[in-house]
Formats: sequence, C-alpha cells, structure tokens
Amino acid sequence: MIDLIKNYSITSRRVKGSAIRELLKLTNKPDMISFAGGLPSPESFPTESIAEIAAKVLKDKAHIALQYTETEGLIELREQVAILMKKDGIHVGAENILITASSQQALDLVGRVFIDPTDPLLVELPTYLGGLQAFTAYGARFIGVASDNQGMIMEDLESKLRKLQLSEEHYKFIYTVPDFQNPSGVTWTNERRQKAVELSNRYNVLLIDDSPYRELRFEGKRPDALHAIDKEGNVITCRTFSKIFAPGLRLGWIVGHKNIIAKLSVAKQSVDLCTSGFNQLIAAEFLKQNLLDNHVKKIIDIYRVKRDAMDRALEKYMPKGEGISWMKPEGGLFLFLKLPELLDADDMFHEAIEKKVAYVIGSVFHCDGKGQNTMRLNFSYPTLEQIDIGISRLADTIKERIVKLKRR
Amino acid sequence: MIDLIKNYSITSRRVKGSAIRELLKLTNKPDMISFAGGLPSPESFPTESIAEIAAKVLKDKAHIALQYTETEGLIELREQVAILMKKDGIHVGAENILITASSQQALDLVGRVFIDPTDPLLVELPTYLGGLQAFTAYGARFIGVASDNQGMIMEDLESKLRKLQLSEEHYKFIYTVPDFQNPSGVTWTNERRQKAVELSNRYNVLLIDDSPYRELRFEGKRPDALHAIDKEGNVITCRTFSKIFAPGLRLGWIVGHKNIIAKLSVAKQSVDLCTSGFNQLIAAEFLKQNLLDNHVKKIIDIYRVKRDAMDRALEKYMPKGEGISWMKPEGGLFLFLKLPELLDADDMFHEAIEKKVAYVIGSVFHCDGKGQNTMRLNFSYPTLEQIDIGISRLADTIKERIVKLKRR
Repeated sequence: MIDLIKNYSITSRRVKGSAIRELLKLTNKPDMISFAGGLPSPESFPTESIAEIAAKVLKDKAHIALQYTETEGLIELREQVAILMKKDGIHVGAENILITASSQQALDLVGRVFIDPTDPLLVELPTYLGGLQAFTAYGARFIGVASDNQGMIMEDLESKLRKLQLSEEHYKFIYTVPDFQNPSGVTWTNERRQKAVELSNRYNVLLIDDSPYRELRFEGKRPDALHAIDKEGNVITCRTFSKIFAPGLRLGWIVGHKNIIAKLSVAKQSVDLCTSGFNQLIAAEFLKQNLLDNHVKKIIDIYRVKRDAMDRALEKYMPKGEGISWMKPEGGLFLFLKLPELLDADDMFHEAIEKKVAYVIGSVFHCDGKGQNTMRLNFSYPTLEQIDIGISRLADTIKERIVKLKRR
Repeated sequence: MIDLIKNYSITSRRVKGSAIRELLKLTNKPDMISFAGGLPSPESFPTESIAEIAAKVLKDKAHIALQYTETEGLIELREQVAILMKKDGIHVGAENILITASSQQALDLVGRVFIDPTDPLLVELPTYLGGLQAFTAYGARFIGVASDNQGMIMEDLESKLRKLQLSEEHYKFIYTVPDFQNPSGVTWTNERRQKAVELSNRYNVLLIDDSPYRELRFEGKRPDALHAIDKEGNVITCRTFSKIFAPGLRLGWIVGHKNIIAKLSVAKQSVDLCTSGFNQLIAAEFLKQNLLDNHVKKIIDIYRVKRDAMDRALEKYMPKGEGISWMKPEGGLFLFLKLPELLDADDMFHEAIEKKVAYVIGSVFHCDGKGQNTMRLNFSYPTLEQIDIGISRLADTIKERIVKLKRR
C-alpha cells in the first residue's frame, strides 16, 4: 500500500479528529450520565407530523422529492424560509437564501468561499468548536476577542480590528454566535449588536451570524438579528432546522447578499451538487402548514424545565464560596460552568468519568488555548432525573478536586 | 458593502459555475428536447416502497432517523452496503465504508484529503466534469490520459506516470470512471483493469474508482471491480444510490482501507457532521428487504429500451459517410457522439437550441481543452418519442453545419 501519511493533503493535516469525539468515546459506559452531547431531545421531534407530511410529499411530489434539485435549494423551501426570516425582521427574497445540508455545511461553505491560508478571523472567546474546525481546514488564523455575559466586548473587537488594519492583514470576517451561544449560553445585547454592525462597516469586514438556537428563547425579549440591523449587506446569517425541527433531515440555510449566495452556490455544487429534495419538501410543507410556531413552543417548554432543573441542581449541589459560577441562559441547549482558576476541568475529566458523569472540557472552545477552568453542560438531552443525579456526581468530583488542591 | 471580489478565497476563484449549468439555462424553452441532463428517469424511482419504508422507519426508529448520527454513517446501512459490495467481489467490513451525502461529496472528500495545490492527477480523456470540478477546487493539475473504447490506454498511463516520477512530481491518484463512463459510455476491459491495478502498485499511486452506473448493465458480462482486483489497499471506490434508488435522498458511499476511511470521516465531520439518518435508514431497509435487485432490473429494462431507441434514431437520422460515430454503450445513462474533426459542437450548440434540442458539449469533459467535435447525449430522462424527435432535430442541425462547412 502507498504511504498514506506522505500523501495526505495540508488541508487534511490541519483538521484533527474532534477532541470531543475522542472524549465521548469514553462516555459509552453503562449508567453514564452525559452532559457532553449537543443533541436535541428526541421528545422534541415532531415525528407524527413528519410521517404525515413525508407520505403527502411522496404522494404528490415524488418526481421532485426523489430527483436532483437546484443547488440553491427548492424554491418551495426558500420561499417559506423567506417568510420565516421576515418574522425576524430580515426582509429578503429567495435569491438571498441558499439551502444547505446543515449549518455545519453553511460554515464550511463560508470558509471555503472566503478564507485563504493564514487569513485572520475574529472569533469570540469561547466560540463554537464546529466553526473553529470548519475554518481551520482552510488555514484560518484565529484572533480571540474577549467576551462577557453581554456578548463580544466591542472595545476589544475594535482594538483587534485596528491592529489588524495597521499590520496590513487581510482579515475576512468576524464569526459570531450571538444567541444562546454554544458553549457559553450568552446572548448579545442590542447595544453590542448595533456596535458590531457599525464596526463591520467601518472596518469593511463581513459579520457571520451563526444562530442555530435563536428560536429557542425561554423568556425575555429577543434582541434584533444582526441581519436586521445591517444596511450594507455585510452580514451572512447561518440558520438550521436541526434544533427547531430535526437534525436527522440535515437542513440549514444561509441568508446573504445575492452575489454572496451565488458564490456559495457554486461552491456547494462542487461539494455535493444539491440538498435532499425529499427532506427539503418535508420542511417546506411543515412551514407551509404553519406547524413550526406551536412546535417551537413545545420544545421551549421541554427545555425550559430542563434548564431550570440544571440551574437548581447546581445551586443545590455545588460547593459554596469556592468561586464556582454559571449564568442561567435565557434559551438554547447549554449551560457554561466556570470553576476557580486553579481547577483544571481537562485534568478532572477522567475523574468525572469515574463517577459516571461527562461534560465537554471548555478549553476546546477557546482558540487561545485557555479556558481550562470551564466546562460545557448540555441540558436538552438528559432527563430531569439524570440532570439531578449527574450534577450531584459532578459536584462530588469538583469537591474532591478542591480538597486535593487544598492539601498540596 | 465590502468589495466581495477582493475578499473571495483562492479556492472559490478556482471553481467557476459549471459550464453545463449556464448552457442548461438556455434549454428552458417550451418544446425543448433535452439530452443535456444526467437525470435518472422519474419512472425509475421506487416511490411506493420508499413511502412504505419511510412510514416504517418513523414508526420504529424515529429517535435514530431524526437525530444526529455517527459521521461514518449508521451501522445499519454500512452493514447492508458491505453485503452489497460482497456481491461485487469486494470483501470489506463496515469499518471500510463511509456513507456520504452523494458520490459528489465522496469526490470532494477524496480531493480534500489528498490534493495539495499543483498536485498532478491522472484522469481519462474525457472524464466526469463533476470530478474535475471537485478536484479543481483543491488546486489539482490534470494530466489527461488517452482513452479508447476499452478504457484508459495503459501505455499512455504508464508513460505519463514515468514522466511524473522522473520529474519528481508528487502525483496523488489516478481518477477513473471505469463503468459506462460519463460522458463516453465506455467500460474498461478486465485486461485494462488488471494493468491499472498493477501500475498503481508499481508507481505507488492511489486508484480512485468512481462507479455510479456499474449496476446499470443492460447486457454482457460485468468486468471485475478494481477493488476486487487490488490486493494492496490502493483502490478507493465511490458509489451512489442516486442511479439505482433515488438521487433525492443524497446517499453515496466510499469503500477503502480503514485508515483512509477514518481520515475521510474526520474531513466529513468538518464539512457536514453527518448524513441524514432518515434517508440512511430508508436505504438500509430497502436493502434489508432485498428490494434492490428487482428494482435495478426494472431500471435496466427501462433504460435499455431508451438506449436502443437512441441508437436506432442515430442510425436512422444521422448523415452517412460524414465521419459521425458513436459506440452503443452496454449500460449507464449516456451515449457519446463524435463528429468529424472540423465540426465544432461548442459552436453548433446555439443552432441546436434554435432547433429545440440540447446536448452537453464534449469539450467540458476534456481536461486538455479538446473534444470540440464531441457531445454527450443522455437517454435515461427523455421519453422514447422525445428521443426520436430530438435525434432527428440534432441530425438536421448537423447536416446544416456540414453544408455550411462545405460551402466555405
């Protein structure tokens, strides 16, 4: 056989297997309670509606559903998505929408179309791991921007943009997850959003808005979408049906200026020709029958209770006065736990596994290699009982660590 | 807005919109008969089986179908695909199989994992346009290898491999479509296959076997799969459900050494995380219920009649003694027409459109910019009546061209 290692491309050498994936393999033990996934709850799938609609689609439109479709996506779905976007203050037509096979594909296509090796990208600290992976493949260099409970810190963003400009770097975009961020759970305030759009215009840089969780707001008022604030055409919005409908259909979409959409479509053509027509028509019909709003309400009700349960369990079990903190997110799937600086969640992972509880180490979301004292906890997938028991196991693990640290 | 053109990546500048796509836009006229597509016939879709199976899958396995799945593909489908491969003399396990969202994605992933900019790739003259596009994105340089009605000419392949070796080039793979090739319709003989595997071992180079049409053999004996001949692990096989089941489900697969499959999986993770579980379970159940063989027989019966109709129409309408030739393919979707050297099918395209018949210009399949006197004709999609009328229109177009040429 040929020597594979000497034949792999630079692109493939850039992207390693996900650290999460390797760690998750350890969590396949009986009785393990895992907060490590990012999966929607199976109770949240509208299975009966999908079954009814799938039958209808195959009865009425099999010749479209089972055939190749336009790379941009079926007009039926793009029009429905445009209506959906209007409800979010984003006024666009079908020509501004590209249907993708998941929002991960959206990120990959954005990376493919804009990133050249060594191009600096501005990202939140922490940010979505799948985004970092998609952009790493194209050779991006990440500039981490400090973030707090109101989103990316604009003074730090501006200072970094200014430095990049002064050093004549060709920065391509600012990557953001402004709603119930994965992993931090943070939602950007309207003020930060306004300022980000202003900076994108002043510094001539695209703003990528990756919002898979935006619809999953349990309480409070939704801030404006970046796309709705922007008047220049500098915002590219990535959304998905995975969290509000079903990930198993692999459907997402990109909203952007029509020239950008055209360029992304050419890229999509060479990576997979088109997205499943069957799945697109199922989603289009679900939207057309106006089933989404009620369904999202149902998901929100399920997840709100779970988020509350996790928040309560953390209050109940976590040791007090040791500098452990978390923010109760107003939506989404994740809660981010901060430990005292000295407590290393990467190191502690195996001890947690011993106690049969799993989390994702926070450091993988930090492009600067930091965040060892943080972890991401998913509350959408486990049951209420698992949340209570799992957090109590996690608290025990942390307490033992603290005792060990104090002994040193 | 930012200046897009100054922000697009090198990758995106490499890949232009498909020439076919632009030409196809011209064919959207009433009464147009198009031989330009590459679509399976809608009559060939097993719609009722899919409807029954989809209902069953959602009833029994919604929690898998609608959820995220393993990047490698569901074990249910990989095991069924392994059984399918065994029938073709390819003895592999699930660990040798990666489920992809179409064979176009398979080609993209192979390109991503192996090609660095300027790497030479050896391809047939002509070869599949989608392959050229996928590999172009990664900066491949194409070395065209002469081909005849028995496949790639091995003397030319060896001479080109030797030259590349002498000039210390890092050639990465030989890309082949050895069964009912798109566009030429040619199937490689067993002798050529044996020799290709031998050369791949001698020159330490991967052999990519892209065989979307292999199951669609109307007559004659199937030669051995390259994978079945190879003992070294140098062959990567790309297959698809698009031509034997339904393209609208976007399902293909790659067979290869387990290390290659693992590397391709890491790449797939960053481009779309996983393939639709719903669609995978539908295909798995279709295979499990043993419905594929009979279904393929049905498709073959439909396409054989259409191929015969096109061959007959060509005999009937094409001018004799002018050097027009074609080979009646033993399977697949395409028939390749060769015109006299002086007749330029690119130029003639608009005249054909005037006469309301469309084809794909052969030059787009030639990496060396030649083949202006060739065209690809699809016989799977048009009806028998359309085939007869369309070929008569095409013959008229050609006759007029010949008259014009003789007048000069």
